[in-house]
Amino acid sequence: MDRTPAAGVVDTLHSAHALCRSLPFDAVKLRDGFWSRWQKINRREALTYGHTQLVESGALDNFAVAAGRKTGTFQNMRFADSDLYKWLEAASFELSRQRDAWIRQRVDEAVDLIAAAQCQDGYLNTYYQITNPKGRWTNLRDDHELYCAGHLFQAAVAHFRATDSDALLRVAQRFADCIDGVFGPGRMRGAPGHPEIELALVELFRTTHQDRYLKLAQFFIDERGQGLIGGRAYHQDHVPVRDATEPAGHAVRQLYLLAGMADVYLEVGEQRLMDAMDRVWHDMCTRKMSITGGVGARHEGEAFGESYELPNDRVYNETCAQIASVMWNWRLLLATGECRYADLLEWTLYNGVISGVSLDGKRFFYPNPLLSRGNIARSGWFACACCPPNVMRTLASVHNYAVTRNDMGLQIHLYDSMRIETADLRLEVDTDYPWQPGVNVRVDEAGSGDTTISLRIPRWCGRPIVRVNGAQVDGIRAGAYCDLRHSWRSGDTIELDLPMLPVFHEAHPFVEPARGCVALSRGPLVYCFEGLDQPAGTNVLGTAVDTAAAVEESWQDELLSGVMTLRARGIARDHTGWSQELYRPLGVPEIGGTPIELKAIPYFAWANRELAPMVVWMRRAG
Amino acid sequence: MDRTPAAGVVDTLHSAHALCRSLPFDAVKLRDGFWSRWQKINRREALTYGHTQLVESGALDNFAVAAGRKTGTFQNMRFADSDLYKWLEAASFELSRQRDAWIRQRVDEAVDLIAAAQCQDGYLNTYYQITNPKGRWTNLRDDHELYCAGHLFQAAVAHFRATDSDALLRVAQRFADCIDGVFGPGRMRGAPGHPEIELALVELFRTTHQDRYLKLAQFFIDERGQGLIGGRAYHQDHVPVRDATEPAGHAVRQLYLLAGMADVYLEVGEQRLMDAMDRVWHDMCTRKMSITGGVGARHEGEAFGESYELPNDRVYNETCAQIASVMWNWRLLLATGECRYADLLEWTLYNGVISGVSLDGKRFFYPNPLLSRGNIARSGWFACACCPPNVMRTLASVHNYAVTRNDMGLQIHLYDSMRIETADLRLEVDTDYPWQPGVNVRVDEAGSGDTTISLRIPRWCGRPIVRVNGAQVDGIRAGAYCDLRHSWRSGDTIELDLPMLPVFHEAHPFVEPARGCVALSRGPLVYCFEGLDQPAGTNVLGTAVDTAAAVEESWQDELLSGVMTLRARGIARDHTGWSQELYRPLGVPEIGGTPIELKAIPYFAWANRELAPMVVWMRRAG
Repeated sequence: MDRTPAAGVVDTLHSAHALCRSLPFDAVKLRDGFWSRWQKINRREALTYGHTQLVESGALDNFAVAAGRKTGTFQNMRFADSDLYKWLEAASFELSRQRDAWIRQRVDEAVDLIAAAQCQDGYLNTYYQITNPKGRWTNLRDDHELYCAGHLFQAAVAHFRATDSDALLRVAQRFADCIDGVFGPGRMRGAPGHPEIELALVELFRTTHQDRYLKLAQFFIDERGQGLIGGRAYHQDHVPVRDATEPAGHAVRQLYLLAGMADVYLEVGEQRLMDAMDRVWHDMCTRKMSITGGVGARHEGEAFGESYELPNDRVYNETCAQIASVMWNWRLLLATGECRYADLLEWTLYNGVISGVSLDGKRFFYPNPLLSRGNIARSGWFACACCPPNVMRTLASVHNYAVTRNDMGLQIHLYDSMRIETADLRLEVDTDYPWQPGVNVRVDEAGSGDTTISLRIPRWCGRPIVRVNGAQVDGIRAGAYCDLRHSWRSGDTIELDLPMLPVFHEAHPFVEPARGCVALSRGPLVYCFEGLDQPAGTNVLGTAVDTAAAVEESWQDELLSGVMTLRARGIARDHTGWSQELYRPLGVPEIGGTPIELKAIPYFAWANRELAPMVVWMRRAG
Repeated sequence: MDRTPAAGVVDTLHSAHALCRSLPFDAVKLRDGFWSRWQKINRREALTYGHTQLVESGALDNFAVAAGRKTGTFQNMRFADSDLYKWLEAASFELSRQRDAWIRQRVDEAVDLIAAAQCQDGYLNTYYQITNPKGRWTNLRDDHELYCAGHLFQAAVAHFRATDSDALLRVAQRFADCIDGVFGPGRMRGAPGHPEIELALVELFRTTHQDRYLKLAQFFIDERGQGLIGGRAYHQDHVPVRDATEPAGHAVRQLYLLAGMADVYLEVGEQRLMDAMDRVWHDMCTRKMSITGGVGARHEGEAFGESYELPNDRVYNETCAQIASVMWNWRLLLATGECRYADLLEWTLYNGVISGVSLDGKRFFYPNPLLSRGNIARSGWFACACCPPNVMRTLASVHNYAVTRNDMGLQIHLYDSMRIETADLRLEVDTDYPWQPGVNVRVDEAGSGDTTISLRIPRWCGRPIVRVNGAQVDGIRAGAYCDLRHSWRSGDTIELDLPMLPVFHEAHPFVEPARGCVALSRGPLVYCFEGLDQPAGTNVLGTAVDTAAAVEESWQDELLSGVMTLRARGIARDHTGWSQELYRPLGVPEIGGTPIELKAIPYFAWANRELAPMVVWMRRAG
């Protein structure tokens, strides 16, 4: 077992087909910027709230019962074990950054409990242990034994990397060995109804260097699409993974599977896997994604809809699906170094992931609609509590997605105020990103010889400028990396100017609820119009925005923990005549109404105040 | 048992709280008009196709197995019995109008088989009889014993009224008595998960004059909303029926329940039932209905959505839900004589019901979307085959909804070429409705004394004119009945002119996929734009219609069995640039594009040719 500090959430230090190597957790330290505020909330509020919920929902008690430390029945959903595992993963990421006695104690208790609940032969699933101990592996399609195992492995790897203990990793390995003894060529066939174990097995392989875990991940991926678990698209069992042309079925399942495929690719470099992923990625981005990066549009089956099926009010866009999209895109980025993956990862983080959690870290969205008529509020913990701890583990590790390295040097993918420290470079990054266009990088220490610092120039950026020690760099292109190869010295500076002009977007005409409408963005943030910010009496659903008039920016420190607001010209129409009719013959002129000033806020920050109508897509005036 | 020719589908001859009495089946005879074409197709094509499907799907065999005439297992959905019952009801309606040896023979065989399958004690449900004979009544919520019983009762009443045989009615009564022996005050409690038996029991009461059937219908209605079957809105068990304020849950269940409530109201006149129905009706019409009269917008749970949740592409609008809406509105009309119910009934028939069946009667829509990107086709029989035979029984009895009578005289609700014959009036109605605005009524025979002929003036009609013997009648108002009280003589004429001007409609701004869009109607018909009828290269999703330009009418005899088409001016935009993007910054001017001529066809006639995109709501130019 590798005792050297392993690299981040996904460890590509030794991956044969990775163009980018991940950095250890402590290589990037966020300072007082955008993401550090979220990490603080996550540590102080969300993790403690989450632990209380694990107690109250019975998820912890299930382990105590399975361990024989308590009597009782199984509580909660049959995959409740994964709630604890995801929380443990989040808590471990937090511990990797900052010692916190309270978190450490809860983590130690949980690890001890999990170890105590494990069966002699390594099996571990409290639902089956409590309710049906002889029924193991009898319903791969609907139950979640392998899914929960995957989350255990991810938690164990995070715990091992964050602490000096291999206590949970040993539990994970014993369970993985148990599973490996059951499944595989010549043994039991099948695939998990809910993918997750695939990516987790690859990470377990990276941590323990046991080939059999990688092979088992490949086995589960290869077993799909053969009808072994019913043949339905819902479970991605309708087509072999290498023949897929579009994302299909349950969105989280689809994207966890794709992340697992990417992990296998990183290790073995099978081109057919990459080709399939490329097709699916392209189809997702051009036909099945909300402008926020939200994916899985359909409530029914929590699934990808048909091409262009992207409603506003009833779009599903489960928070977990966007997290899964980030996970997949991260792995694709590690494999290829292509900017498009980092672009989508960032866009999804800012708009599709953190929209799923309130600014105080304790209230959540399961679906992330793009329109509200004033009746949509965030909730606390859900009965099916997949999203909250998924947000927690994502926020706790978000700094890990900022930077990678390779033989040429360093790649900066995400911008925030941070210190980056590797063997041969120490950089300070100062920025008010995503609010302000400037990013200043200062070299504090550099080794000898030429090193490339690659800076992502986001695709959304109109006229990016890069200066090295004050001298403007030529040929800068949005949607690509700017590679600066120098013999860096302490005191060198790199200045990025990524102009964040408000941009109105239109949608493909097949996205029919957006016909005649526009959405507003600035920098990496999608904006929305919430009723509370508009002049009294304004109905944002009946309002049109003037796309020809200038949009003005205004920082509001006191609003929603501090946001850049955008002010646009609009036209409000009088809707008082509508109360008793749903449809009426055209009579009143279409154009006309009262000119008003509209105010937009970042989409992620909506639904943090009183209930109010909200739109992302607003009618275009004229 | 009343052997006099009973009155129509819903017999209100003796209903204490009916303002309109239904007429016997043979009182109205359709001639070569709009509905007679549909009835011909229904008899010649749909009924024979349906019978083949009953054989192939195993629905008939289930009865043979239950009767001990065959061996085998239960086939198809657990409510497959109702497929046969609905087909039998349709076939009986056809027999009531025209003797057809083939139909009569199939009906006789089916009745014989059903009678043979009935248990000694009257119980009859082939699913339980074959698979779980001791399990009767153990799952009222999810299984469909009472639902199937209701369809048996409706079929039996129709069969009795159409033939001189009470063979099926006796089966129905034996089963009803069996159910009455199990359920009721002091006996077993509960309500059916799928309403239907309530309205059927009231009709059985009307036919047999056995009070206990009416009381049992009331019992099942009163048992709802008390959590006896789970307390979910899906089953309308979340609130007592008298406290309902909006339609909720599974749309067909909700509307069959409301129809049953209306039937009970017709008999007992309980004002609280009418008050609740009035609230629900108002909420449905002002917040939860597509412009086609389609109801139950949500795929998930086949349910009513939230207020204004009315998508275009994914609207559910199950054909059965619109049929159920017609059934409910018919009963409300019988109770109150209010024009609004007849208006909605007609609108729903033309736009929401017959959209569910192809022009050749053999291919169906389960959901009725308002938009297609070119990938939506009709199907043959469904695995869950509720809609096809439901359409058949509706078409076979549609003439029954045209006319009623009361002590004052006759009420004409629907217009078509027909002969109306009652004890004291014989009328000939000549019209090309719904294509042409003129309706000519000629009195062929009249009794002595004053009689009122009431003519519905549809709500959609702008400047209606009524002439009696050439003299214009004053004070004609749309959305109300024109009551003409005279001592009618043979040769008297009434001429209606119901101008059918093309009308553009806009939707309430909360109906957000229709923001900035208009829908087109003419007379009682909603129109749509199908890609096939537009200039080559036109994408109806990206096209805008000029609502200021004149819309021209043109009858096309050879198109879609003959339809009035509408031609409008439009603006086509070039969408070739869109292939690789889902969203893009506004760049090209919004207004502009190529002027084109658009052609609209009645919505009900779409999807009868090759696959093509279709929109009901089209963007408004300007």
